[in-house]
Amino acid sequence: MAVYTEIEDDALIEFVDAYDIGEVLSCKGIAEGIENSNFIVTTTNGPYILTLYEKRVRIEDLPFFLGLMDHAAANGIPCPVPLRTQRGETLRELADRPAALVSFLPGMWPRRPTASHCRQVGEALARFHLAADGFHLKRANALGPDAWRGLLEASGDDANQVKTGLAGILDAALDGLLDAWPGDLPMGVIHADLFPDNVFFRAEHLSGMIDFYFACNDQLAYDVAVCLNAWCFEPDLSFNVTKARRFLRGYQDVRVLTDSEIAAMPVLAQGAAMRFLLTRLYDWLHTPEDAFVTPKSPIEYVKKLEFHQGVKGPESYGID
Amino acid sequence: MAVYTEIEDDALIEFVDAYDIGEVLSCKGIAEGIENSNFIVTTTNGPYILTLYEKRVRIEDLPFFLGLMDHAAANGIPCPVPLRTQRGETLRELADRPAALVSFLPGMWPRRPTASHCRQVGEALARFHLAADGFHLKRANALGPDAWRGLLEASGDDANQVKTGLAGILDAALDGLLDAWPGDLPMGVIHADLFPDNVFFRAEHLSGMIDFYFACNDQLAYDVAVCLNAWCFEPDLSFNVTKARRFLRGYQDVRVLTDSEIAAMPVLAQGAAMRFLLTRLYDWLHTPEDAFVTPKSPIEYVKKLEFHQGVKGPESYGID
Repeated sequence: MAVYTEIEDDALIEFVDAYDIGEVLSCKGIAEGIENSNFIVTTTNGPYILTLYEKRVRIEDLPFFLGLMDHAAANGIPCPVPLRTQRGETLRELADRPAALVSFLPGMWPRRPTASHCRQVGEALARFHLAADGFHLKRANALGPDAWRGLLEASGDDANQVKTGLAGILDAALDGLLDAWPGDLPMGVIHADLFPDNVFFRAEHLSGMIDFYFACNDQLAYDVAVCLNAWCFEPDLSFNVTKARRFLRGYQDVRVLTDSEIAAMPVLAQGAAMRFLLTRLYDWLHTPEDAFVTPKSPIEYVKKLEFHQGVKGPESYGID
Repeated sequence: MAVYTEIEDDALIEFVDAYDIGEVLSCKGIAEGIENSNFIVTTTNGPYILTLYEKRVRIEDLPFFLGLMDHAAANGIPCPVPLRTQRGETLRELADRPAALVSFLPGMWPRRPTASHCRQVGEALARFHLAADGFHLKRANALGPDAWRGLLEASGDDANQVKTGLAGILDAALDGLLDAWPGDLPMGVIHADLFPDNVFFRAEHLSGMIDFYFACNDQLAYDVAVCLNAWCFEPDLSFNVTKARRFLRGYQDVRVLTDSEIAAMPVLAQGAAMRFLLTRLYDWLHTPEDAFVTPKSPIEYVKKLEFHQGVKGPESYGID
């Protein structure tokens, strides 16, 4: 959660004036999004979400993110739609930062995901993969396998502060992972961060997907593996194979996984665990003590990685 | 700003169900309020504000605060109105905390208050003083003159970390202040914290007053003195007598200050500066480094106190 930037009321009124959405009634910073500052702006037309992009987002990536939301929404995905000014712009500037106004999605993210939520997320992820097909911009995965070695080195021996011997354990795991990493699976645009707090439900039905700020071009099945990590472990970090089965069934009801994708799932799931482990480890070791944001413990992903290292094969994920 | 508590979606839906306000569409933690957790809850009827009361608020004070908002709103003050459940309750429980749902006020607080804002705040404060007359509950000012000595001792010699010799300076100032403190001015319910972030404007017109969680029974003119401190200094801490004159004129257009109140203004203004100085000093010295909330520097109020100590008399505030 984060609200970093103060907006002057005059500047906001002028900013909103460029859209045809009525008079500004209020603007409140909200505790969502880690990389950016987010606000609910209510006008006489209703609520909208205003995002100011802070330092960690590269401005040259913003046309990809905003264009992707536009493209996905036009293809039926319930995601925020960037509003256009009367001059047709979506990416603008406010309070000296890149800024965009997007539509407001109803729904709440599930604090305790159920198997039914998992099935719906599987379906929605597959629909997104199909809907994003044909999007004309490209963006490499800045946090994909090529980045992991560097991320691990950036934490270095400090990793051992988190768990004795962790630096060495991760180094060995990474060697194995990179050797086994598949390179020929179907490609497409992936969300890459579809955690429960990025999926909204309304009366138990999936009503929205948000936060496309890690989206990129990569192997589609890697996105499936991210979700297995994000949705299918219980709070005690035991793996819930029923949730995984429902998630994968939901996915395959829309897009059938190839045999190669299925065979690669244990390695992809290890990779997804490694990716979140490495960024959490880095943030854990590098967040100043007086920071706004409390970093998440990397230990959760050490345990998830161990689980995926120990599975017998794809059948451990409930793949029929 | 603060959001401390996570709310389970099921618990929220059940909570909202007790009011007749439609289906919950979303709930987002907002970066407003230091003492409590605040959320915008949007239902099919529109937006509402949900407050969870955290540790620093005494539960036995909540009927005073909620009752006061109810009473003030019924008497024409644009303030949040606590919603009643179908059983008539305003104070409830959610996520193991006392909780209340109140109406949503349009408007934005002025980041750069103008003389026009000041005049309107003066009027609104006086209207609140008159409207609160007849409210049947009482609450002592827990941060009034009786509390200042204890607050200063709680910071002790650590005050000297903020400014060399500050502990002694404040001790001497407090002696003089308490000796000169008036005790026979007109009493009533005061807001006691009417800073710019607690007053909303819409198209340059005052549209709301919020945050009654310091309200109490005290001398009305002390509330005026709090506002002189909160609204009439420039960012460089110079005193803007034009803003003060407009503020006081706005106030007196609605409620005329007595001669005793006017004569006491320099002492009351010193007292108001002392009150915010002492709580900021305490928070500055006692907030853990990894806390969510960045404490505000007490130095601002040291300078305001010095200003009020140096004024010639009430005419320095532009009182005609």
